[in-house]
Amino acid sequence: MFVDVSKKILIVGLGLLGGSYARVLKRFGFHISAITKEQSSVDYALCEGIIDEGSTAPDKTLIGEADLVIFALYPHVFVEWIEQNQSLLKSGALITDVTGVKGNIVYKIQDMLREDVEFIAAHPMAGREVSGVENSTDKLFIGANYIVTPTEKNTPQAIQTCMELGRLLGFSNVTTLSPNEHDEMIGFLSQLTHCIAITLMTCNDKADMEKFTGDSFRDLTRIARINEQMWSELFLENKKALLDQMNLFLDKFNELKTMLENEDVHGMQDMMRQSTARRALFDKK
Amino acid sequence: MFVDVSKKILIVGLGLLGGSYARVLKRFGFHISAITKEQSSVDYALCEGIIDEGSTAPDKTLIGEADLVIFALYPHVFVEWIEQNQSLLKSGALITDVTGVKGNIVYKIQDMLREDVEFIAAHPMAGREVSGVENSTDKLFIGANYIVTPTEKNTPQAIQTCMELGRLLGFSNVTTLSPNEHDEMIGFLSQLTHCIAITLMTCNDKADMEKFTGDSFRDLTRIARINEQMWSELFLENKKALLDQMNLFLDKFNELKTMLENEDVHGMQDMMRQSTARRALFDKK
Repeated sequence: MFVDVSKKILIVGLGLLGGSYARVLKRFGFHISAITKEQSSVDYALCEGIIDEGSTAPDKTLIGEADLVIFALYPHVFVEWIEQNQSLLKSGALITDVTGVKGNIVYKIQDMLREDVEFIAAHPMAGREVSGVENSTDKLFIGANYIVTPTEKNTPQAIQTCMELGRLLGFSNVTTLSPNEHDEMIGFLSQLTHCIAITLMTCNDKADMEKFTGDSFRDLTRIARINEQMWSELFLENKKALLDQMNLFLDKFNELKTMLENEDVHGMQDMMRQSTARRALFDKK
Repeated sequence: MFVDVSKKILIVGLGLLGGSYARVLKRFGFHISAITKEQSSVDYALCEGIIDEGSTAPDKTLIGEADLVIFALYPHVFVEWIEQNQSLLKSGALITDVTGVKGNIVYKIQDMLREDVEFIAAHPMAGREVSGVENSTDKLFIGANYIVTPTEKNTPQAIQTCMELGRLLGFSNVTTLSPNEHDEMIGFLSQLTHCIAITLMTCNDKADMEKFTGDSFRDLTRIARINEQMWSELFLENKKALLDQMNLFLDKFNELKTMLENEDVHGMQDMMRQSTARRALFDKK
């Protein structure tokens, strides 16, 4: 067999991501259990056949039997869970996560964790504008990036296993970055773009604009529909890196504004040519 | 007959927009002629059967016979054309345009134009990332907005005819705005969004970002591939309105930055809730 399906996997937090993990991993034949807040999520997942067992409590048996535990929780809930329940983890268990920020979380968890359990952090860069296990799908990860963020505390085996997990889940691109590189990159590509979208959406409340909206404005504000609980927490957990990226953006935007004020056509055209050339790098391959 | 196809239409500037106008109007049976810079564009359009006659020179017969002249030129080229060739227009002709900025153009043209010719301005809000008559299509206007921008110099008949033209072309939404309302609206919905996209695309030149790009960043930078000749001219022609919109955006962006610096979670969440609510207005109907 190529995949050791005798390993038991526990998913903590059965929402859109946790549910999608369960769907794909169940297909391979793993024993999947889940611990999550709402009984309705457990019922739904059992009924759909995407988990074998589930509980809304930190069930000793489910936790104690798991070889791999995947945490799909808000950052502060993840930290609290480890504080309160890590004594229940099986000796030798591997734990991983889906958290969208790393520097503030990875070292905190690794520092507090038992010596006989290893935490290898990962960020599955996939999502939808809807949430909940009911919206989970086994196609969520196709074409997406999965980033493993090891530290010097991680073993080569754990890094290897986590990357294999990303490939089993169907991610098209599985790579590693340090936690800080990850946070800088995500601050730019994901968090700054959300800051821009919500700013654009709220900076001008003139009536009837929607009657004249074209595709440009719709594209730039698709992500302006945002889960305020999750994103405010992600922004705060990545405060320094995000502020750096916001300042980079502001400097350049002010540069463009000055060029327009001074009617510096050549400067504006240079910036547009750079923009066009650089955008070509980001076309979907 | 519902449509008076005995009217002769001249299109000046046979690119993506001019060519798409020709395609749709030819289908109704109008006599369509075109004047454009490149002989290859004339040849292509004749070969495709989307124009009846064409020339690369300001041909006296083509201009003198046209009941309706549609200018699909860069703003400064349009103004120069009128200065040099308006004596050739037929008495009683109606002229219209596709220019993306209005205040700086409409009054200038109307003030210099012969008394027996009327200019009614319009902005077809449609485009593609490719240009040229070879990329023109008769589907370009479906779902898009067509805005007529009359002044006190325009007759009710000309406004009516121009709106009928928008409907014949297939635009889903045909409305009127004053030139200044138009410029404010386009400054926000179109020009500010392009400013943001090119800033985002050029503010951080860290290598390998494209390996980790998700849909958010791709969405926000689709329009960062930009025709620098056209857009630098459009920005300058709408300088005041665009600077106003850039300042509105900057004020709000700095507000968000201050909230993040102060860890004002409630302030950030309020802004995100507003953003989510307002974005719902802009969903495609």
